[in-house]
Amino acid sequence: MDRFEPNLRIPGPTALPSSVRDAGSRQMINHRGPEFATMLERILTGMKPFFGTTSDVAMITAAGSGGLEAAIVNVLSPGDRVLAVSIGSFGDRFAKIAGIYGAAVTKLDMEWGQAADPTAIREALQADPGVKAVLLTHNETSTGVMNPIPVLAAVVREVSPGALILVDSVSGLGAVPFEMDAWGVDLVVTGSQKAWMAAPGLAMIAASDRAWRAMETATMPRFYLDLRAHRDAAVNGQTPFTPAIAVVFQVDEGLRLMHQEGADAVFARHEACAAAARAGLPALGFELFADQRFASRTVTAAVVPDDLDWKAFNTEVKRRGVILAGGQGKLTGRIFRLGHLGSVTLEEILGAFSTLEIASLGAGRSVTPGAAVGAAQAAALASFGLVAATTAGAGA
Amino acid sequence: MDRFEPNLRIPGPTALPSSVRDAGSRQMINHRGPEFATMLERILTGMKPFFGTTSDVAMITAAGSGGLEAAIVNVLSPGDRVLAVSIGSFGDRFAKIAGIYGAAVTKLDMEWGQAADPTAIREALQADPGVKAVLLTHNETSTGVMNPIPVLAAVVREVSPGALILVDSVSGLGAVPFEMDAWGVDLVVTGSQKAWMAAPGLAMIAASDRAWRAMETATMPRFYLDLRAHRDAAVNGQTPFTPAIAVVFQVDEGLRLMHQEGADAVFARHEACAAAARAGLPALGFELFADQRFASRTVTAAVVPDDLDWKAFNTEVKRRGVILAGGQGKLTGRIFRLGHLGSVTLEEILGAFSTLEIASLGAGRSVTPGAAVGAAQAAALASFGLVAATTAGAGA
Repeated sequence: MDRFEPNLRIPGPTALPSSVRDAGSRQMINHRGPEFATMLERILTGMKPFFGTTSDVAMITAAGSGGLEAAIVNVLSPGDRVLAVSIGSFGDRFAKIAGIYGAAVTKLDMEWGQAADPTAIREALQADPGVKAVLLTHNETSTGVMNPIPVLAAVVREVSPGALILVDSVSGLGAVPFEMDAWGVDLVVTGSQKAWMAAPGLAMIAASDRAWRAMETATMPRFYLDLRAHRDAAVNGQTPFTPAIAVVFQVDEGLRLMHQEGADAVFARHEACAAAARAGLPALGFELFADQRFASRTVTAAVVPDDLDWKAFNTEVKRRGVILAGGQGKLTGRIFRLGHLGSVTLEEILGAFSTLEIASLGAGRSVTPGAAVGAAQAAALASFGLVAATTAGAGA
Repeated sequence: MDRFEPNLRIPGPTALPSSVRDAGSRQMINHRGPEFATMLERILTGMKPFFGTTSDVAMITAAGSGGLEAAIVNVLSPGDRVLAVSIGSFGDRFAKIAGIYGAAVTKLDMEWGQAADPTAIREALQADPGVKAVLLTHNETSTGVMNPIPVLAAVVREVSPGALILVDSVSGLGAVPFEMDAWGVDLVVTGSQKAWMAAPGLAMIAASDRAWRAMETATMPRFYLDLRAHRDAAVNGQTPFTPAIAVVFQVDEGLRLMHQEGADAVFARHEACAAAARAGLPALGFELFADQRFASRTVTAAVVPDDLDWKAFNTEVKRRGVILAGGQGKLTGRIFRLGHLGSVTLEEILGAFSTLEIASLGAGRSVTPGAAVGAAQAAALASFGLVAATTAGAGA
């Protein structure tokens, strides 16, 4: 990244590595020609390890929310009973889409900042054995909580073995391990502008054999988002509709970088940056918003203190080049969020804390110079296994 | 364009000017921030003259077909009677979408290669006074026919004043004059990868006041494509869902180039390139496919002669750097198409004919060296008004 570029610390879109930026400037090609076919095949195959699946992956030109809609309308019929487990704004959205298309939605609302409660899911499924699908959010971008999908999926599989498990992992997949097949998940949605280090515009969706079968009988109306058309076209190395080619170039390059770095290294980098964020914010006097047992590894939310003029503070932080995200929905003005996904590096997180320290001092907040940066660094080193976690924690 | 770049003569995606390519490589920004808001406002306002409307324009992250789906689901309810006038593959698609969402579709199929017949539309509307919407294709990319929208719209307005007129101008708008308000059209869809000189990924949609009102009562299910959400978000300089930012950058730059060139000059350039294509192909012995009274100004289709091995011929043309489009649907193998829209220049059309002459001679076809290039040039000069049309025509 250029040195004088803003430090984009929102939970997506994420900053693009320079080779990904270059890919976005490539000349157009025929999306019905062999060059595109080779690239599409490379992407769809190359993503499978990150989904943890051997099933087909589809790529649609849409935001992540379009991907969520695709998840619903492809496998369900109006009247189908759906258990929507919401832990935040995006869980609400997933439920809302199902309702709009005529599903009979039972909503299980968790307190925002908390993960989904397996016991509550168990009870809800026991109360309604006819549930056709369970909607889960993997990483809830609005609260900084990452649900324990394997645990939740296991409950569904045990109580309602026939139910489809549909997972929003728009802001999770690619940044953390995910084992769709092993966990018994039926459909997973992710978005190009998150861990994949590309511009927004593409949603990638993997479906289990069971989900692909469900598409044959599902009757919710669909055309543009019909995954069967995507699978059929992919056989010929095409998409059914003209794809966002510039973004496809970028995803191809982003994925190449991820494979070059290695999935484990990608995951470790995200974990270390997350650890740094979680250590640095409290060192600045900010209370973490999420239940830390289920803290997201791609975005960290902190509570806006009562005595802080958030707007003035954030304006100063932005002026100094760090772009944070505010709260969404009912959390507007109550929390702020620091994204650490995609091309994120520890340097960028430390840089953000440097700026946050300066802005905090400027705002008259009581902070120890270097404390947040030091705590973030120590936590990252512990995460990387370079020092013992307890020692590192003492710095915070 | 780089000299050694292929001459991309498909009817979209079109070749990107270098400044548009550069725009695609820009670093990501916060799509909820002021920089994006300014850009979105500039685009939505800057497109209005090309739509010929003072109504609101919405921009969704989707292919043109997603835009067509948005046109249907936003203003109609299941059971609504719809007259779908199809003159080709994309007209069929528009009708299909309406049917999938439960509209009662009456399809008026014209012979492919012909424009829509105003009399047939008049009779169909007289036979069913309850028609809620009429679907029209402005430029039928699959056949190279451009419907006379003002004529067709006038018939609808006269016979069924209450019917909504929904127009697919994915591959027309921006390249030719369009007067949505003056013609009484209610909704128009276009796509970023056509006249707008950007990568695919964005569909722009303008709706009349009447169409915006229809959205309040329409009951087809919609979430991602809900235009009301787009209009509401645009008030705050945002899109409801994360947009394809890299493509937004490109559309912004493409639109800047179009305004700099001037709409009239853009239209004249397209008309001249179209005239060149229509003169050059017959000079090579290819019969034009479309009814020339309604020849498209963005794509020209020609019949594949019985005595030509199309596959071998096209392979040679491609090897020499010119990328043509084949036929779609039932026209596969029967026609080929030469696109001339977006950043197209007369030089590129002449270059394509140079290659087509060479490939034709190589294939043993009887062509006069220089005849196609000369005819194309002469027709373009006549189109530009530099010579009298009849004189120019004599060269072909």
